Amino acid sequence: MKNPPALEQLIDSLLCLPGVGPKSAQRMAYYLLQRDRKGASKLALSLDSALQVVSHCRLCNTFSEQPICQLCDDDNRDKSLLCVIEMPTDLMMLENTHAYSGLYFVLMGRLSPLDGVGPKEINLDKLIKRARDGVVQEVILATNYTVEGDATAHYVSELLRARNIKTSRIARGMPMGGEIEYVDSGTLAQAMIERRSIK
Amino acid sequence: MKNPPALEQLIDSLLCLPGVGPKSAQRMAYYLLQRDRKGASKLALSLDSALQVVSHCRLCNTFSEQPICQLCDDDNRDKSLLCVIEMPTDLMMLENTHAYSGLYFVLMGRLSPLDGVGPKEINLDKLIKRARDGVVQEVILATNYTVEGDATAHYVSELLRARNIKTSRIARGMPMGGEIEYVDSGTLAQAMIERRSIK
Repeated sequence: MKNPPALEQLIDSLLCLPGVGPKSAQRMAYYLLQRDRKGASKLALSLDSALQVVSHCRLCNTFSEQPICQLCDDDNRDKSLLCVIEMPTDLMMLENTHAYSGLYFVLMGRLSPLDGVGPKEINLDKLIKRARDGVVQEVILATNYTVEGDATAHYVSELLRARNIKTSRIARGMPMGGEIEYVDSGTLAQAMIERRSIK
Repeated sequence: MKNPPALEQLIDSLLCLPGVGPKSAQRMAYYLLQRDRKGASKLALSLDSALQVVSHCRLCNTFSEQPICQLCDDDNRDKSLLCVIEMPTDLMMLENTHAYSGLYFVLMGRLSPLDGVGPKEINLDKLIKRARDGVVQEVILATNYTVEGDATAHYVSELLRARNIKTSRIARGMPMGGEIEYVDSGTLAQAMIERRSIK
């Protein structure tokens, strides 16, 4: 006794979602067909429409419906600074700080050879072309401080420095409100090594 | 700085999936658009086709593309036994045991007033009509031994007994290979209370 073919097909298709295995896919398919057919048909429509209209900004590579996204098109931004980040979420987090007024480049991932993500998958060609437009003076690497994010920052900085482009990395150290007693020793060690003189 | 509208719409639509919150929905949308556009378009197609062709078997209420499912249409099954289960997965588990040759009725859920699942949502009218076809001699309640599954079995058995239909409940006790030292006390207590005489 098996599920009907169209249902098996739906379960199989749901497996493409990250973090969804066979058990969850089956649960999702049952749920959609039994309790939320309206949601399922809305999801099908949204998928189609997003696939049609959402592409990447030609300059910063983030998701955009226009060839150039709103932020890159904003004349008030400092065009001499380019901040390299992993995902669009990081862009939103940085924007929320109001501490940065330059432009961005979104890698859409990080180097991760084991998952098949190499320099091509994170659009490094596009980044180098972007950084050499003659206006950008400094590239700030704001990838995550994870092993993969850090390796990506290192790799990108090597590429850029070989082309005489100034690079920097966001600071590492104690978090705001952090107490020495509770911070992990790796962070504390880095905060000690990278201490700044008080002017 | 926000996501483009079609992307926001997709994230919103993914929220209809059970177990998916705003963070996962965003991660899924980014992943589909960035790394698996083919999977996304296959998913949209599968959703549409499943919504169109998958309905419920008129007799047993499981998912089916035909008005009467393959199992209900099988002349070799014992039509005097009707086994009531919560989900199609349970049907497959029971079939795999090869210990049952009767027919099934799939509730597609369990009573759960707090989640808005009442007698109507689990198709009890359909079950009673089905059990009173004159052929069914015994209704076996095989809902889960959770609080909700057990309450459902109790409620259903009251309904059926009021209509003079014989009901039974699958046995409770020690699992096969279970050791008394490691089994939970609730199970052990039930196994003691519901002990059977050795013939």
